[in-house]
Amino acid sequence: MSSDSLVPETRVLAIASHVVYGYVGNKMATLVMQSMGCDVAALNTVHFSNHTGYRQFKGTRSTAQEISDLYQGLCQSHLTDFDVMLSGYAPSAAAVEAVGAIGLDLQCKAESKPGSFFWVLDPVMGDQGRLYVNDDVVPAYKKIIHHADLILPNQFEAEVLSGIKITSLSTLAEAITAIHATYSVPHVIITSVRVSQFSSSPAATPENLTVIGSTIKSDGSPRLFRVDVPALDCFFSGTGDMFAALTVARLREAVFAADASLRTTKSWVSPDDVKPTDLPLAKATVKVLASMHSVLEKTLEARDAELRATAFAELRATAFAEEAEPGLSEEEKQKREYLRRTKAAEVRVVRNARFLREPEVEFQARQWTKEELPVGLR
Amino acid sequence: MSSDSLVPETRVLAIASHVVYGYVGNKMATLVMQSMGCDVAALNTVHFSNHTGYRQFKGTRSTAQEISDLYQGLCQSHLTDFDVMLSGYAPSAAAVEAVGAIGLDLQCKAESKPGSFFWVLDPVMGDQGRLYVNDDVVPAYKKIIHHADLILPNQFEAEVLSGIKITSLSTLAEAITAIHATYSVPHVIITSVRVSQFSSSPAATPENLTVIGSTIKSDGSPRLFRVDVPALDCFFSGTGDMFAALTVARLREAVFAADASLRTTKSWVSPDDVKPTDLPLAKATVKVLASMHSVLEKTLEARDAELRATAFAELRATAFAEEAEPGLSEEEKQKREYLRRTKAAEVRVVRNARFLREPEVEFQARQWTKEELPVGLR
Repeated sequence: MSSDSLVPETRVLAIASHVVYGYVGNKMATLVMQSMGCDVAALNTVHFSNHTGYRQFKGTRSTAQEISDLYQGLCQSHLTDFDVMLSGYAPSAAAVEAVGAIGLDLQCKAESKPGSFFWVLDPVMGDQGRLYVNDDVVPAYKKIIHHADLILPNQFEAEVLSGIKITSLSTLAEAITAIHATYSVPHVIITSVRVSQFSSSPAATPENLTVIGSTIKSDGSPRLFRVDVPALDCFFSGTGDMFAALTVARLREAVFAADASLRTTKSWVSPDDVKPTDLPLAKATVKVLASMHSVLEKTLEARDAELRATAFAELRATAFAEEAEPGLSEEEKQKREYLRRTKAAEVRVVRNARFLREPEVEFQARQWTKEELPVGLR
Repeated sequence: MSSDSLVPETRVLAIASHVVYGYVGNKMATLVMQSMGCDVAALNTVHFSNHTGYRQFKGTRSTAQEISDLYQGLCQSHLTDFDVMLSGYAPSAAAVEAVGAIGLDLQCKAESKPGSFFWVLDPVMGDQGRLYVNDDVVPAYKKIIHHADLILPNQFEAEVLSGIKITSLSTLAEAITAIHATYSVPHVIITSVRVSQFSSSPAATPENLTVIGSTIKSDGSPRLFRVDVPALDCFFSGTGDMFAALTVARLREAVFAADASLRTTKSWVSPDDVKPTDLPLAKATVKVLASMHSVLEKTLEARDAELRATAFAELRATAFAEEAEPGLSEEEKQKREYLRRTKAAEVRVVRNARFLREPEVEFQARQWTKEELPVGLR
């Protein structure tokens, strides 16, 4: 690898969860951004043994005070010259507020230099129609999102933030428009929408995942683009964190490649004459998804190989366990199998970091057709 | 970069400190090992804003209980299939004991498969003739080192462990012999010895740093090799952690490149007929030092550039501060300058990761001459 495949030098403050084993939260985001050449300060909001997808873990959560203290530690030694902040999971409403205060303080410090600081916020609240944080985290996010430059909700989080149930492309566009308007947040990406769920013929295979993005125009209207990618047949933890981290690196790269004035423009909002598909946000998203597709494809291969390799060992271990603990319950056997499958599905980033730096596949961003838009946006 | 420049797949449990900003402890070790292709589980023993070289920091230390709990979390989900454990700084004697218990448990689990688990222990206790841990940490280390496969003391720590004051090459060899004998630890590397301090003509420039290593023979005698590298004129924090992390990756690579039986030999101890300079430990050390030399050279360049760039900004800020806080004390000015210089000296690993994977310079391991050895070892 030459240093040419690295993105422009970028100092990031990443605030998210840490797990000892596996790749989610800051453990994923730090690795991904470092692999792309970013200098990452990692402020960890929880210290868990493994991700919660295993359905059991040990460890501790940082208090809001601990999060603030660590940031004060950076301030007192003048270690806050960050270009970007990426904030992810915070374990309580108070922690979300503490993260918000950090983002706001960094923004204040950069006020005299528009574009010198950019806040990417992943409003981690839930998925698949279900909140997995306390109810009071939602209003905490609703307060701090006003200060973010780019937010990365999934479909459910976009519904929570916009108050609009997304049942069609048209309501999806309405939700993004509402998010721009309500929170004056200039950039939005809705990660992973299954557009097929909107269709009356849901049998389309292979199913696509659609990522929708928009950068606001000066009149407050969205500039919508979409990128469709083939969905892989497996659930992987940490993909949201991988998406966010790649987006930090690729968006900064795209902004540096755009007209030089953009990077000294507040929130890197492109002039109104830039078409949706020419937005740095769209160019970044295309590369992000290409990297993710390759890494996840390799993960799927590695998972299958690991499941084959451990099946026999597991059988032996189970037989042994039954000798040692006769009458091992069906429940315990199922639990072990679940753990084995969860471990095998850990994303293989380390050995595939080259796909982060040099994505091989090519996806396309495309503009929405008139028919896809709600009447007000046509 | 192709995946060819990665070391053989290696699952590492790394137990050391975490800092939000900068590169020491696990923040350094994780990045280095991941860059080489290792899958790293990172169990953090402290959570600080920055390294203690800044002379101020905020954050918390993990208790021994928290360290044990995180490991129990891994155990209960069967996430302990590590090939190597790398243990570094632990913040108390109880924490050292907790780390020792983890190493021992992993060793027990691997007992039926010799060579399938290897423990690299960096006995972080002090430097330059001074302990920077509590007195009770020393006996805690002395207890657990018996179980380690490779230890990486600096000159001072080797003195503490051996009870021998190192004042010459001869006493250095005696210290290593004593460490092999007292702790039955099969591999030792003493990182950074300034051999010139032993000489009666200390004016030799450019001064060299010498790294001394040894793998035990079946009769208990050491197999000593040395590698001399030019010392750089700057103090960098985290170099011990970089050394340890590179050693994990390169030693495993060298063991895989050796006779196939070595990797199923307990503690990877080469047969007696392998010469000191042909040891996997020696081959690893040569590559480790080559990578370090390049990364630190690049760091020195980047530091100087940063100091030049910030000097003007700093002057302006100081002038501004004097306006805002007239009569800024001389002490405060000196403190700011110290912080600025410390920040500038953070090791630049991220942008120079290619030198980790593909070291460019070549150093040589050489055998000790008879004259350099104490009489008993000639």
